[in-house]
Amino acid sequence: MEPSSKASGRLIKAPENFLDPAGVRQVFAEGRKGRRDFIRGAFAAAGAAMAAPLAQATTNPVPASGGDANILELPEHSRGLGQPVVTDGYGKPSKYEANVQRRQSPGLTQTTQASVSFAPLQSLFGIVTPSGLHFERHHQGWWDIDPSKHRLMLNGSDERMLKAPKVFTMDELMRLPSVSRFHFIECGANTGMEWGNVAVPTCQYSHGMISCSEFTGVPLKVLFDIAGVDYKRARFVLAEGADGSSMTRTVPMELVESGEVFVAYGQNGEMLRPENGYPLRLVVPGVQGVSWVKYLRRIEVGDKPYGAKDEVIHYVDLMPDGRHRQYTSTQECKSVITTPSGGQVLLDKGFYNITGLAWSGRGKVKRVDVSVDGGRNWRTARLESPVMSKCLTRFNIDWVWDGKPALVQSRAMDDTGYVQPTYKQLRAVRGSRSIYHNNAVQTWLVQESGEVKNVQLA
Amino acid sequence: MEPSSKASGRLIKAPENFLDPAGVRQVFAEGRKGRRDFIRGAFAAAGAAMAAPLAQATTNPVPASGGDANILELPEHSRGLGQPVVTDGYGKPSKYEANVQRRQSPGLTQTTQASVSFAPLQSLFGIVTPSGLHFERHHQGWWDIDPSKHRLMLNGSDERMLKAPKVFTMDELMRLPSVSRFHFIECGANTGMEWGNVAVPTCQYSHGMISCSEFTGVPLKVLFDIAGVDYKRARFVLAEGADGSSMTRTVPMELVESGEVFVAYGQNGEMLRPENGYPLRLVVPGVQGVSWVKYLRRIEVGDKPYGAKDEVIHYVDLMPDGRHRQYTSTQECKSVITTPSGGQVLLDKGFYNITGLAWSGRGKVKRVDVSVDGGRNWRTARLESPVMSKCLTRFNIDWVWDGKPALVQSRAMDDTGYVQPTYKQLRAVRGSRSIYHNNAVQTWLVQESGEVKNVQLA
Repeated sequence: MEPSSKASGRLIKAPENFLDPAGVRQVFAEGRKGRRDFIRGAFAAAGAAMAAPLAQATTNPVPASGGDANILELPEHSRGLGQPVVTDGYGKPSKYEANVQRRQSPGLTQTTQASVSFAPLQSLFGIVTPSGLHFERHHQGWWDIDPSKHRLMLNGSDERMLKAPKVFTMDELMRLPSVSRFHFIECGANTGMEWGNVAVPTCQYSHGMISCSEFTGVPLKVLFDIAGVDYKRARFVLAEGADGSSMTRTVPMELVESGEVFVAYGQNGEMLRPENGYPLRLVVPGVQGVSWVKYLRRIEVGDKPYGAKDEVIHYVDLMPDGRHRQYTSTQECKSVITTPSGGQVLLDKGFYNITGLAWSGRGKVKRVDVSVDGGRNWRTARLESPVMSKCLTRFNIDWVWDGKPALVQSRAMDDTGYVQPTYKQLRAVRGSRSIYHNNAVQTWLVQESGEVKNVQLA
Repeated sequence: MEPSSKASGRLIKAPENFLDPAGVRQVFAEGRKGRRDFIRGAFAAAGAAMAAPLAQATTNPVPASGGDANILELPEHSRGLGQPVVTDGYGKPSKYEANVQRRQSPGLTQTTQASVSFAPLQSLFGIVTPSGLHFERHHQGWWDIDPSKHRLMLNGSDERMLKAPKVFTMDELMRLPSVSRFHFIECGANTGMEWGNVAVPTCQYSHGMISCSEFTGVPLKVLFDIAGVDYKRARFVLAEGADGSSMTRTVPMELVESGEVFVAYGQNGEMLRPENGYPLRLVVPGVQGVSWVKYLRRIEVGDKPYGAKDEVIHYVDLMPDGRHRQYTSTQECKSVITTPSGGQVLLDKGFYNITGLAWSGRGKVKRVDVSVDGGRNWRTARLESPVMSKCLTRFNIDWVWDGKPALVQSRAMDDTGYVQPTYKQLRAVRGSRSIYHNNAVQTWLVQESGEVKNVQLA
């Protein structure tokens, strides 16, 4: 693990004058005085901007000294010419946001190609994950595949499964009827380390194998109808990737028939990113990420589950009685508070906006409750619109921190009525030796020092 | 203008075997044969991957020759180890998408700092604009402002307007109750060149001064309530930017009271990009982009409109009688087909998915109709969910092109019942000497050659 200070995202500061009218009155008075001179100063600066020494960088047009209001220390950006359009062709985040990155957890995997990187949830807003910060999970590294040479093959396990096997080019796929939909993708192993009560320091590492995008592509059912799939016989679908791992996963035909499964080329408005399967991946809403096969090159339909390596050996749930559960692919209802969260520091008591994310692989989030006393009392948070099925939902709720230790939790409920379990409830059924499918309520301890810590309540 | 081939985005190809079962049967048969050897080949390749010569890059596991099925020309990416996680820290698009960029229109403005760049609408999917491709409009260049030094001042035009003037740090703003909402932002001058019937070659240049993001921030009304604004007196708001242009715009208080206006720090999940006002900009849903003041440093409330330079001299509509209309800030209902659109080439007749974007500054898009015969016959397109207020809406509709010239148009209607006008209807009211607020129906001519051209119908 990296030190939490590196991974914590922005700190939360609370200067003394926060929300205090008296405290800012003087600053304001100076500001008004400064403004008259600001106009004068701006004209003077127009001619001398290039020659002027770099002024003290402060945005607020406040004179440097109350005594000499003619000397305005306007920041450089209020005096000079800025950067031109299309400076970089493709824009990048501010240099001040360089710390907001996806991060690998050193030691978690033996190679960096068969590994994961976590999305910095503690620094993200809303529900869309910027594609440059989308979590990564590769089984044999990522590739930038030439789309003009990529093909999608569609075949049956035998000749009775479909009438006309197909090979599609990307151009052919992109001519077909398309859909655009917002969905989360969560690795089945997200929050996996918490099964062992590891309590990794930040929500980036505890919950960062989830991301949410607007995907665009062709419903798999459209392709199946073109190929003349016999839906009575072909009840299972095998998806296969083109990268070295040849990842294969079984998808039940009911999901395809519902119209929800699609082959996606678009993500957040542009083509998929190479790390996320460019130029083509499967989208299986509500189902764990491993089934969203990247670099998708082949779809086969057949009459039984395929029992691929990653559904027989991996992505299975070790139960208390020593048996494994297979094909538990749906990501159950879950939530996490992203602010305040592990590694962040509250520098003063007072008002805070508690915010976080909730989701369900079964449908829409119906309600999120928040507790600041470890689950004794709950208040219902406000959900941001739109609330979409099998998609992240952003929640917000007010909180006035009294400076005492607080146990902050969120508990989501989906529109099937399912309620996110506590660790006690989850372990009563699942034991504690699993890797996958941990959707328990997360607890953050806000300490008196303001430092926030990952804890598990007994 | 750049040559259209550079700006056209991906071409649309239609190989002969498209949707033709017979045509691909042989390929498929070879694929099946190849697959058995693929498995054998994969084992052989595992040991020799590093030493193996670079195979012909084709994704489909088809043997190079039918005669010697043992020699499989699997692509490099199906044999070797790919790139590790967090290769670049912050991910980038595929190298094959390098042509998808925002572009400046040379000669449109006299400097590159007071200029625009256009979003590549013809290459985008769904409704979210990737922040790296968001259109740019700067009045004096862009800056990367240190957020720790940025301030937002809130004051009244005189002492009766509010009780307690304020100066907020970014940290203070980010503790306050926040909202996350999807909205489009469109420059008032978007499609401006078409007033003069210039017929710029691509929809990037004709309509590319629009983008759509999920913004996160604090409702201005929350700040006003903290400051104790007297809503009876203070009926207008002045927003002022910190960059060299000191952009100022008037916003009517009703928009703030509706709760829709907010000060945003977040865009598509992360902090605003520097080109889009980092660290703080105003979001005024439905209103032209110039009012979404970037680098927002000051908000003043007063009892009359401010008549700033950019609302008295610019962003006014020259009417046929020679007078100017001011404060026509709301972006009326509008739409554009992005595929097929100017500069694209249809390489064969047959099936196409016609797709495009619709929006209204007054509310939700209710319906989009599409014509392929210049407006004589219309069919209603399918709207992608979610349809949100003052937000882009993606529409799709099937089309089988018969290879003959076709005049392709879209016509949007919003939930107020307003229907996007034809050029004839728009010019009857507005004349033809305007720069701003052109929301007429766009026509693309698909020529027999497949080349698509921007035309205006009389």
